[in-house]
Amino acid sequence: MLKKVGVYAKKNHPDAEQLALMICERLKKENIEVLLEDGLAEQIGQVNGFSGEDIPGQVDLIIVLGGDGTLISVARQIGELTVPILGVNLGRLGFLTEVTRDELPGMLELIARDEFQISDRMMLDAIIHRGDQEVGRYTVLNDVVINKGALARIIDMETCVDGRHLSTYKADGLIISTPTGSTGYNLAAGGPIIYPEINSLVISPICPHMLTNRPIVVWSRSKIEIKVKFEDDVVFFTADGQVGRKLLPGDVVEVRRSEARTRLVSSPSKDYFEILRTKLSWGER
Amino acid sequence: MLKKVGVYAKKNHPDAEQLALMICERLKKENIEVLLEDGLAEQIGQVNGFSGEDIPGQVDLIIVLGGDGTLISVARQIGELTVPILGVNLGRLGFLTEVTRDELPGMLELIARDEFQISDRMMLDAIIHRGDQEVGRYTVLNDVVINKGALARIIDMETCVDGRHLSTYKADGLIISTPTGSTGYNLAAGGPIIYPEINSLVISPICPHMLTNRPIVVWSRSKIEIKVKFEDDVVFFTADGQVGRKLLPGDVVEVRRSEARTRLVSSPSKDYFEILRTKLSWGER
Amino acid sequence: MLKKVGVYAKKNHPDAEQLALMICERLKKENIEVLLEDGLAEQIGQVNGFSGEDIPGQVDLIIVLGGDGTLISVARQIGELTVPILGVNLGRLGFLTEVTRDELPGMLELIARDEFQISDRMMLDAIIHRGDQEVGRYTVLNDVVINKGALARIIDMETCVDGRHLSTYKADGLIISTPTGSTGYNLAAGGPIIYPEINSLVISPICPHMLTNRPIVVWSRSKIEIKVKFEDDVVFFTADGQVGRKLLPGDVVEVRRSEARTRLVSSPSKDYFEILRTKLSWGER
Amino acid sequence: MLKKVGVYAKKNHPDAEQLALMICERLKKENIEVLLEDGLAEQIGQVNGFSGEDIPGQVDLIIVLGGDGTLISVARQIGELTVPILGVNLGRLGFLTEVTRDELPGMLELIARDEFQISDRMMLDAIIHRGDQEVGRYTVLNDVVINKGALARIIDMETCVDGRHLSTYKADGLIISTPTGSTGYNLAAGGPIIYPEINSLVISPICPHMLTNRPIVVWSRSKIEIKVKFEDDVVFFTADGQVGRKLLPGDVVEVRRSEARTRLVSSPSKDYFEILRTKLSWGER
Repeated sequence: MLKKVGVYAKKNHPDAEQLALMICERLKKENIEVLLEDGLAEQIGQVNGFSGEDIPGQVDLIIVLGGDGTLISVARQIGELTVPILGVNLGRLGFLTEVTRDELPGMLELIARDEFQISDRMMLDAIIHRGDQEVGRYTVLNDVVINKGALARIIDMETCVDGRHLSTYKADGLIISTPTGSTGYNLAAGGPIIYPEINSLVISPICPHMLTNRPIVVWSRSKIEIKVKFEDDVVFFTADGQVGRKLLPGDVVEVRRSEARTRLVSSPSKDYFEILRTKLSWGER
Repeated sequence: MLKKVGVYAKKNHPDAEQLALMICERLKKENIEVLLEDGLAEQIGQVNGFSGEDIPGQVDLIIVLGGDGTLISVARQIGELTVPILGVNLGRLGFLTEVTRDELPGMLELIARDEFQISDRMMLDAIIHRGDQEVGRYTVLNDVVINKGALARIIDMETCVDGRHLSTYKADGLIISTPTGSTGYNLAAGGPIIYPEINSLVISPICPHMLTNRPIVVWSRSKIEIKVKFEDDVVFFTADGQVGRKLLPGDVVEVRRSEARTRLVSSPSKDYFEILRTKLSWGER
Repeated sequence: MLKKVGVYAKKNHPDAEQLALMICERLKKENIEVLLEDGLAEQIGQVNGFSGEDIPGQVDLIIVLGGDGTLISVARQIGELTVPILGVNLGRLGFLTEVTRDELPGMLELIARDEFQISDRMMLDAIIHRGDQEVGRYTVLNDVVINKGALARIIDMETCVDGRHLSTYKADGLIISTPTGSTGYNLAAGGPIIYPEINSLVISPICPHMLTNRPIVVWSRSKIEIKVKFEDDVVFFTADGQVGRKLLPGDVVEVRRSEARTRLVSSPSKDYFEILRTKLSWGER
Repeated sequence: MLKKVGVYAKKNHPDAEQLALMICERLKKENIEVLLEDGLAEQIGQVNGFSGEDIPGQVDLIIVLGGDGTLISVARQIGELTVPILGVNLGRLGFLTEVTRDELPGMLELIARDEFQISDRMMLDAIIHRGDQEVGRYTVLNDVVINKGALARIIDMETCVDGRHLSTYKADGLIISTPTGSTGYNLAAGGPIIYPEINSLVISPICPHMLTNRPIVVWSRSKIEIKVKFEDDVVFFTADGQVGRKLLPGDVVEVRRSEARTRLVSSPSKDYFEILRTKLSWGER
């Protein structure tokens, strides 16, 4: 039985207040304690907010009010704790925030009865190696991206999979995406959709100079290593499109499956394909 | 230890003779009996050829001299017997016939010592349902394709995965490809490359009318059902690009993982990525 | 001043009757004679219908009630006569039938006052050469397509532009599209949108085996010649997706700009880009 | 008859020296004066070099030793002067530097006899408007690119053609390419090849969020205006991939055909399609 639930919201979203109050009210009836993240607590005039970093260690479930971006940033804070997340979209249907505000009351009933279903999503660890040093480590739910700066010439990305040379991509960049992230940047770059629970990654070049360089799906337990070769230019590493840093020439980005994973509470009323059809307008041309 | 080896060759290829004689000579030294397929036996002036259908049940290994197409048609004859196949290309490097004629002597040494490696490839069963009847059943290594005739209008293909509606594709056709087949027709239609041993299928529409319809990778144990809707037009089903038949309106094509699989003897000197780089000219633009 | 107007409709469409009557009534007030195509006349209980082939030579304007397909087939009957066509869509907005039924009364006012605008669209002539013989000649508004049969192997299409070798395409087929046709089959095959009045053609391969084979836009006055090479297979030629015939090995399809052109009456209330945005759902993801 | 020829070379390329000396020697026999650009003069030990900016106003022909990038930067210095340029590639065949070093002696004969052919290439002017101010003006041979920084969220680019709204692209960026530039960045982003002398531009979104947003070819005399909408992010403008600057929110980039054009000396031995086939490896898969 759930004892404590954490709630996060997209910063200063006008609709968050009412939904947060509804959650508090409904869950208190079940003697479930609700921990509000600082900003949200303040927004609804409560004094006892919690730091976003502290909540995951204390709760049995997390509710996120916002869009996919908000949920992704919360997933990063949860890390290896595997607390389930329920995403409630405040605007348009999201791939991750698949519950609408109208469906929230029904979902709260299921939560109260501890009867919800989980979709388990793999995450990736990305490690930046500089010479013998590890200079950065990130865990992502969607994707790891290497991208040249706007003025840079094409960069070379020497890519190995499990120690074997795959290709030296000459491109604007490279996306390593989980199945969850496949409907994001990967799709815009020409990569395939991957059903969430497939044990695989997709490596998709961004605007490759070699036209025969095509997205490739590899085993999720593979170790991907990308050695970035350039001279004076600016090249960036980005985790989930939210956190980034500059790379130096010769840096190696290692990507492998994470021990952390994200456990999403599924809407009982819609399946993955329905979300896909809606988001991609498959009903129309 | 191998006792009997079967040999098939591309019909009437001038180079098959010399290679077949080399195989016979070398393997006889090891007391391995060589069974030649009828046409090949005739080509090299031997009288004791075997029917292509009878060989798989009698041998421990099959050698195919030819291109990928020849190997695929032999794989279909092997069915569920899982005899390993060594593909030797007579022309250009193939995705499946990755051993060149120059490498054949070295491979024969490995075979004599029983020291070769196997790459295990999944196959698909495709069943055509018409009303309550099953009117056809096919096992494929590469792909199942549904295609409209050249003069037909766009056809509707109502597609379900494990009983759930995926999309009703309006397109020239639909490709259901294994990882092995992903570098074939699927790639030409815009689908991704899938590393051979990933447990997945890819569903790729051919020239979809809906531009947001993109290839989707699903779990290999999924049951795919495609209900083909059209009126007066001509619509075809094709297995591995080699065997085909007309469909009738309302026919349902069911695709699922086969119990049969193809066991390819791997070249010790080149890995999958090297073949990919060579076939797709990734060294050049 | 307009004296005679011809009206065609999609066969047996239930809504055609009422619109045809509205047209007759309104135009008679202006002493404009209305010639109804046979099938339509019959549908609304009139006896004096005209053969579709005879109407273009007698009228100053043609109104088509239906979809883009209906309009294209009427355009072929008009040939070199350049009578303006007003397309009224009976269902969804079309690229060519851009006037809705609600806008028809307003358009009839403009017609009565002879104040409409014309968008001039180039057409193509396609000639099939067999040895020294010319075995077919077609005029198209959208596209000329060469397509292999569903069971055929890949075909070779040796393509020259103004006598110079462009490429020998190995593909499922080849589309030669006008700017008007660029939003049709060409778009589904990965070709670009071309603004209607650009003097150019686009040559787009269908599922090319060579991944670097990309659509190419050439000058509309170029002479395109495609020599189709195959052996036992079935290969088709199609004009505007409506009229087709089998090709024989060695046939040469010559495509060049036609003297005929199609003059579309434009809706005053929407421009080409608006139609594009609506048809391609550019407002949404 | 030619009187003066200017020569530029890729900076510090080891092979430039010998070719420059060959040019000097051969042209002096014809009493053609050779003006060497500063850096090149220094490299071969001559003291009387000329500033790169001063050469175009004084000569009848310019020879560029280097790659396409070198030629493009010289074309920018020529501006509206329309001096013909002969591009000699020092490495691999280029789209613009189509003469190899082996062909240079033959080309010098043609130059001496004033018998060379010209391919006339349109250029674009790009103007950056900030409020009422014009804050930058650039002339390009290949393309104008608007690109978001690596960490930026998707940007909105409200795009008008001749004052009419085309689309508000949500994408990584937007490429406005000439036919000459169509085989460059545009091709990597999924745009079509455009034959050099077609009077058109192509607008290609980079990784568009809306999957139905496809490259569109418009009339070369169109005025393109792109209003870039973003908040805190970094967005860049780039001319020919060589010169760039940051944009501010609300900046409008206006692109239109330039009065300047680039006149390329054509190799008599190869046509555009041959270069295309070679550069894109159309002979192979």
